[in-house]
Amino acid sequence: MHQGQLTVAVLGPLGTYTHQAAYGRFGSSVQYHECGTITDVFNVVASQVAHAGVVPQENSTFGSVIETYDALRRENIGTICGEILLEVQHCLLVRRGVKREDIRYIKSHEQALGQCRDFLAQHFPSAALEKVGSTAAAAKAVSTSDDCAAICSKVCATVFSDLEIMFEGIQDRNNNYTRFYVVSAALDELPSPVPIPRQTRCLVRLSSAKGNRPSPIMQLLSALGMNIARLDRRPQLDTTLLFSNIYFAELERGELGDEPWMLEIQCALQRVQDSGGDAQLMGIW
Amino acid sequence: MHQGQLTVAVLGPLGTYTHQAAYGRFGSSVQYHECGTITDVFNVVASQVAHAGVVPQENSTFGSVIETYDALRRENIGTICGEILLEVQHCLLVRRGVKREDIRYIKSHEQALGQCRDFLAQHFPSAALEKVGSTAAAAKAVSTSDDCAAICSKVCATVFSDLEIMFEGIQDRNNNYTRFYVVSAALDELPSPVPIPRQTRCLVRLSSAKGNRPSPIMQLLSALGMNIARLDRRPQLDTTLLFSNIYFAELERGELGDEPWMLEIQCALQRVQDSGGDAQLMGIW
Repeated sequence: MHQGQLTVAVLGPLGTYTHQAAYGRFGSSVQYHECGTITDVFNVVASQVAHAGVVPQENSTFGSVIETYDALRRENIGTICGEILLEVQHCLLVRRGVKREDIRYIKSHEQALGQCRDFLAQHFPSAALEKVGSTAAAAKAVSTSDDCAAICSKVCATVFSDLEIMFEGIQDRNNNYTRFYVVSAALDELPSPVPIPRQTRCLVRLSSAKGNRPSPIMQLLSALGMNIARLDRRPQLDTTLLFSNIYFAELERGELGDEPWMLEIQCALQRVQDSGGDAQLMGIW
Repeated sequence: MHQGQLTVAVLGPLGTYTHQAAYGRFGSSVQYHECGTITDVFNVVASQVAHAGVVPQENSTFGSVIETYDALRRENIGTICGEILLEVQHCLLVRRGVKREDIRYIKSHEQALGQCRDFLAQHFPSAALEKVGSTAAAAKAVSTSDDCAAICSKVCATVFSDLEIMFEGIQDRNNNYTRFYVVSAALDELPSPVPIPRQTRCLVRLSSAKGNRPSPIMQLLSALGMNIARLDRRPQLDTTLLFSNIYFAELERGELGDEPWMLEIQCALQRVQDSGGDAQLMGIW
């Protein structure tokens, strides 16, 4: 690997918003590797089957993407080296000829179902909501079904034959954006087509040191002493302590100084270690 | 209302873990009001159709319950006045006679689907996962279906006729607990059967003051200056600013002093207001 054409892993099949976000960044010069789940995107990047990957991190309406943060709890899961912002306009797609009254199931990724809660409650209060791996996987499944509809992008109506658009712009809020992380295998192995401007963001994983009494989050954050743009919490599973937490702090650079930002971050991580916590740099971009 | 028998709203139908948690606290002396969604539990309590309500807050395996935190973003949503801890052991239930190879759909609440991810991937990799309002609603639906299974509690096999247990203890982690909030209409209107020990917990909602430039979360937390046990983030929707956040900080009392804790909390909220943020007390227990 790392010779010839660049391979970028995305949540597949082609037609997902993740693929659109990746295409907007990498264009047609790279090869796209379709994964069935977000976790698989991380896996193929960490195992160097792909040079880079793109995963959804957060939606402006429905919030953080749980599967992404859960993958980031693991060791050797790769590193974040960039971000992409994409406006998301959902459509309801059905197989050509399926009528509104035929629809018993509505399939999509849990994020898309969550971003269209009001629409679904109003127009399809009795339809069953089926959670599938991606929006395009939903479209693909619906193309062979007589009683299903998929929430996905307009693009899927051209990617999969026999589909037609029943509703357009069905997200609960017009101002609906999804933010993606670009991931690569290791901090020093950024794929070259990713433009590296002066770094202004990084993601830090914070947890109580293993085996210790949990450190209060304020103690960890105070020791870190950095400007936090986003802070997310997930259960820490590699411990017998019930309701232990891992926090993910996305840091934002205040002023662009002369010193490399990395030095400042490394000092901050050391302060957390010294205070009895555990801090891990998950990426800088 | 507020005369005669106490009414407690729960996520229904009877047989949910929420109902079991509520029953463990309130017993058979109260009347249970079954709601279709977590949001409805908040609504009937806020509108005083029920004296109190019980909602799931967090699971030790799959984390925070999004619908609960999203409801807590709203104004006049009631107040938290207690917590309940319940061990959760999931079963896979089918209609009597349905065979493993007949199962095409597996229905449950998104939390239960999330707590059994490994089991589902291993035993039913090709089954469709259907997200319904509650675990007991899934059991009820499955009792009239030939190709579905429900993830729910063992209790549902007795609540709904014609159901049998196909698998028991299918949660990914043995140490699987759900924590619930008890909610009431207003801070000074606690339902009397809720025991009020010396208060040691409270929930505070933090956001940038409306219309202002967002205050960094560290600025709000430093102004608050309290011991934080849990910190959660959800999108703030009543603003035109993209990716604005609301944080929920559950505070834990350090030492039990002589002063009422409420005074200390009120001073902390005032410090947040003074620093340009917005802080709202969502309950104390």
